[in-house]
Amino acid sequence: METGFDPLATGAVHRLRPPGLVTLVGAGPGDPDLLTVRAVKVLQAAQVVLYDHLVGDGVLALIGPRAELIYVGKQDRHHTLEQEKITQLLVRIARAGKPVVRLKGGDPYVFGRGGEEAQALARARIPFEVIPGITAAQGMSAYAGIPLTHRDHAASVVFVTGHSKEMGGDPDWAALARPRQTVVFYMGIGALTRICEQLVAHGLPGDTPAAVVERATSAEQRVVVATLRTLPAIAASRAVKAPALIVIGSVVTLHEELAWFDPQPEPAERRVVALAT
Amino acid sequence: METGFDPLATGAVHRLRPPGLVTLVGAGPGDPDLLTVRAVKVLQAAQVVLYDHLVGDGVLALIGPRAELIYVGKQDRHHTLEQEKITQLLVRIARAGKPVVRLKGGDPYVFGRGGEEAQALARARIPFEVIPGITAAQGMSAYAGIPLTHRDHAASVVFVTGHSKEMGGDPDWAALARPRQTVVFYMGIGALTRICEQLVAHGLPGDTPAAVVERATSAEQRVVVATLRTLPAIAASRAVKAPALIVIGSVVTLHEELAWFDPQPEPAERRVVALAT
Repeated sequence: METGFDPLATGAVHRLRPPGLVTLVGAGPGDPDLLTVRAVKVLQAAQVVLYDHLVGDGVLALIGPRAELIYVGKQDRHHTLEQEKITQLLVRIARAGKPVVRLKGGDPYVFGRGGEEAQALARARIPFEVIPGITAAQGMSAYAGIPLTHRDHAASVVFVTGHSKEMGGDPDWAALARPRQTVVFYMGIGALTRICEQLVAHGLPGDTPAAVVERATSAEQRVVVATLRTLPAIAASRAVKAPALIVIGSVVTLHEELAWFDPQPEPAERRVVALAT
Repeated sequence: METGFDPLATGAVHRLRPPGLVTLVGAGPGDPDLLTVRAVKVLQAAQVVLYDHLVGDGVLALIGPRAELIYVGKQDRHHTLEQEKITQLLVRIARAGKPVVRLKGGDPYVFGRGGEEAQALARARIPFEVIPGITAAQGMSAYAGIPLTHRDHAASVVFVTGHSKEMGGDPDWAALARPRQTVVFYMGIGALTRICEQLVAHGLPGDTPAAVVERATSAEQRVVVATLRTLPAIAASRAVKAPALIVIGSVVTLHEELAWFDPQPEPAERRVVALAT
């Protein structure tokens, strides 16, 4: 991890924060280097930060030492009561006159429920702003070498959640099972078998390339490439766990050629030996 | 614009750049504050930068004064010969032993043809890496107050290009004309009438909310909200021009409640008067 990063030399962000302003910030995939510059500035100037369980430790380390950190993560982030409590807490702190940073994994407006939080703030007449973040599919795409679009493979890309409560029912299988399209499932690993079966049942060939990417962009990144027919068994045999994305479409075949990121850090012992010789 | 930003205090990026490494960098929507931290570090350390016409001046201003800047933008970025020339140039400079930054608007792997450039580098055995960027749809979403997904509105989001050469033919209208889905067209403004007509012809109600967002995230951002039936005429009457995104789906209705970004900078004269009184 690179350090020595001080974007706050001018203090300009401090001057821009009126009391009670809530800033919804996309924390990206976890690596603090994948935050936007604006997100770093806001975090370094923050007084109160509410953060989710998917926000990386490296990102949290950027927050100033005097800031109050409030963990509001939940493994099941679809629990409605929990979401209402978070929103109420945001409103309460903002009304007390403190600027609040609401830090969410990925992008606040891509499966982040940021829209619901922003609406609650708007209805409470609390000023807010939104800073986008690199969403998981983009981090996966860059670091696993699987372009989301490509003239030879996919003219469109769909982000969809495999979590049925978020969907308000089942995914629109017919719309997803189309050629020349990349489909990325968020939160789908628990439903992997069903997702692959349904896409085949709705018309995609069983040999359509499909992959699971676990902990994309991190030192623990794992990429499992297979087909719709074989992916569930192979992913199970490798004990793939959340957080993981499912990627479907022929862009997956580019992984072999375009993978550049070596997720295995050199073991510390080996480095010591190399220095000693 | 905030300044005083010096992420290179440790010089760590310099040590990480082997000779001839090509870094594909997503430049985001234009505002340098929406670059990733890693992109800024790479730009500040760059020796040679190849950049497109959609890269903002503020982003270019981050590049060190000794770097060689090469403009390879083209208004019609689908011209195959031009793309081949860019790739050849990249390979030639990298082979000469210089680290090269390839700076592309938005995200390199979302309609950026970064996949093709990365493949050419892989085939020439030139090492490369990819840094994702905030794609136009995300910048639009955050700054125009139109969440890409929302439990009450859209369980998935599709990015598609309205540029037929990129599509390899027509968009998959049947897959796009579905309920509970947000569709964002890139490069579609020239085909706006046809896009709206086709989506209605394939089953979306004519009163489906639809918007055009011009120059999203910039001080010139304009948001035109209408329906599939009325949007072409309204956008024409307002003389909307590229770069602009088309957004379709009921999330568009949230704009009125969630718009927080005031794209009109205070006129300089008014500011002077205020200071004088």
